[in-house]
Amino acid sequence: MAATASSTAGAPIMTKAAVAFEPKAPLEICDVEVAAPKAGEVRVKVMYTGVCHTDAYTLGGLDSEGLFPCVLGHEGGCVVESVGEGVTSVAVGDHVIPLYIPECRDCKFCSSGKTNLCSKIRATQGSGVMPDGTSRLTAVKADGSRVPLYHFMGVSSFCGYAVMPEISVAKVSASAPLDKVCLLGCGITTGYGAVKNTAKVEAGSNVAVFGCGAVGLAAIMAAKEVGAAKIIAVDINPGKEAVCREFGATDFVNPKALPEGKTAGSTIIEMTDGGADYTFECVGHPALMREALECCHKGWGVSTIIGVAAAGQEISTRPFQLVTGREWKGSAFGGVKGRTQLPGMVEDYMAGRIKVDEFVTGKFPLSGINDAFTEMHEGRAIRSVVALHE
Amino acid sequence: MAATASSTAGAPIMTKAAVAFEPKAPLEICDVEVAAPKAGEVRVKVMYTGVCHTDAYTLGGLDSEGLFPCVLGHEGGCVVESVGEGVTSVAVGDHVIPLYIPECRDCKFCSSGKTNLCSKIRATQGSGVMPDGTSRLTAVKADGSRVPLYHFMGVSSFCGYAVMPEISVAKVSASAPLDKVCLLGCGITTGYGAVKNTAKVEAGSNVAVFGCGAVGLAAIMAAKEVGAAKIIAVDINPGKEAVCREFGATDFVNPKALPEGKTAGSTIIEMTDGGADYTFECVGHPALMREALECCHKGWGVSTIIGVAAAGQEISTRPFQLVTGREWKGSAFGGVKGRTQLPGMVEDYMAGRIKVDEFVTGKFPLSGINDAFTEMHEGRAIRSVVALHE
Repeated sequence: MAATASSTAGAPIMTKAAVAFEPKAPLEICDVEVAAPKAGEVRVKVMYTGVCHTDAYTLGGLDSEGLFPCVLGHEGGCVVESVGEGVTSVAVGDHVIPLYIPECRDCKFCSSGKTNLCSKIRATQGSGVMPDGTSRLTAVKADGSRVPLYHFMGVSSFCGYAVMPEISVAKVSASAPLDKVCLLGCGITTGYGAVKNTAKVEAGSNVAVFGCGAVGLAAIMAAKEVGAAKIIAVDINPGKEAVCREFGATDFVNPKALPEGKTAGSTIIEMTDGGADYTFECVGHPALMREALECCHKGWGVSTIIGVAAAGQEISTRPFQLVTGREWKGSAFGGVKGRTQLPGMVEDYMAGRIKVDEFVTGKFPLSGINDAFTEMHEGRAIRSVVALHE
Repeated sequence: MAATASSTAGAPIMTKAAVAFEPKAPLEICDVEVAAPKAGEVRVKVMYTGVCHTDAYTLGGLDSEGLFPCVLGHEGGCVVESVGEGVTSVAVGDHVIPLYIPECRDCKFCSSGKTNLCSKIRATQGSGVMPDGTSRLTAVKADGSRVPLYHFMGVSSFCGYAVMPEISVAKVSASAPLDKVCLLGCGITTGYGAVKNTAKVEAGSNVAVFGCGAVGLAAIMAAKEVGAAKIIAVDINPGKEAVCREFGATDFVNPKALPEGKTAGSTIIEMTDGGADYTFECVGHPALMREALECCHKGWGVSTIIGVAAAGQEISTRPFQLVTGREWKGSAFGGVKGRTQLPGMVEDYMAGRIKVDEFVTGKFPLSGINDAFTEMHEGRAIRSVVALHE
């Protein structure tokens, strides 16, 4: 680690980043200047970042609110490089995981005790800027021209350094390997928390998980941990069966391999004598969201949407499905309050209570980040981790 | 009361009923023969019955599963006339409220502790017959011809006598006036229970109720009882405002009287600084169900569907509404287990803890039952009660 607080604090840092100049184009590795943190902000050295479907979703132009040019990435494993005026909860050298859902501990949402959806900086974060309305990221081209870049999800971890508000970093154990726990910044926490915090699955329940990428596997892992009876993994990729079972699935349903006239939903209803107690949609397809709801058990089945649908898409069902006792809900970042709960999840990982290493199927240098996207699109990866400084 | 157990038990009884020979036609007052109860069944003298929108819904041909000719009616206040072999939980002379959702205390649903949707006789009840597959009701025409009639919702209270399984009657206090507590057989319990059992509204919550007929008013009453802060009643009939306030509403929104560009939903979001904590749809219109969901507060808002939509209609929303913490659920008969909980509701009424008398806005003889439907359609009635033997 070359950077220290004394050598770089207070000044801009030049680093490398994978920049998304426009939707549907490959990322470009560029020189990017990262400004010093202002009051209440933290600048972190991004050691590692995961590559998530949400990055691909925005890069693919499916997010109508996507802003370009920007630096994508939101699963970071970082070290605090310097802090702005008034920052007290983290210090230089702390290991942190950036939070795309902050935790101010003060707004109506944080105070409610009912949700993790802190609203403190929602408007500016959604506009790709810091709370003061400006960006800390500027691409510097070979000819010296400067292009301001938007931040993404308040994180932008596809960059050697990143700046975010103090409320958007969770301090975690300094002994946790950042090339692994970076995945707790999104995928693993999202699926795991949806089972434990949002749906609150109980021991003995029958669970079905639609879509077995990192989020789905984390949901399976959590269902196993809480003692679910049947854990039915659903994926159209038969290559996923082994890893699903390794994570705790008791059954695997490939919708493409079912007999004529059968669907994943009808199969689950048969396997569970009337429907699953809890289902999770981890793909982002409205038709699957409906199927996941409708294969829940009458009277008490709960279906939780985790996947992110393309802009403008809608879900539908007959109201009778709800009047007969099914419940439709959703989960963001697994209902986890990042600053309060992520440190404990890191401890759980260090103590062997939750898997993290097993999610990492590939490691790439920053220059290979487009290959990491390809791995993901082709369904070979669970999660690829990109090293920013190796 | 002319009928006694000794004089009528074991033999068919001739009585008067309002028969629905076909959809969209007025009910006809006919002679109907009510067969004696078989084993496990109870025959009751129906003293009074409420008239509910669900009766009108089926009569209007909107229920694709509606069966004709039939005897409608499902809000009865009754006295047990005779019992079939093996019946032990009620006896001749007991005051009972028939249950369109039975409570067998034995099936998977009753045993779950999670729902009131007993499944024991669901298939036969839905087919308009008793559990043995036959009807107990036969119209006898002036020329002596006999027309078998379907039962409706397992009750058929638009008839001087009715037969139902023992598991479909709730024994209530003999001192409760049957011309009032009959309304606990559907409308009042449905709205009241949705607030207390399904949504579990807490003190201090902001509540919005869409549609202020008997079900909506009962929801308002329950919201007041649990100590809701704001209780916003929504109805397009301005004549409802006074009664809504009397039942506990703190605000009244008439969607037809709003300024250009405002909707009930946007108005509720403004009145509650972001959305209601709990909303209830008591109309049965999919567009309102969506509006009720989307004016719930981000992070924790819960919208409960109570209204019954026409066959084939669907509800829709963007999944983002759920992923950002709203919950969509439904309620049938207020989540109330009839045999276990209705006696207590009758006690609550007798002790003045819940309103019932205030719901009765008109009383009709059986011969005037079509006028009771007209009153309801024109929005003048909260609930009309029909006397079968006066």
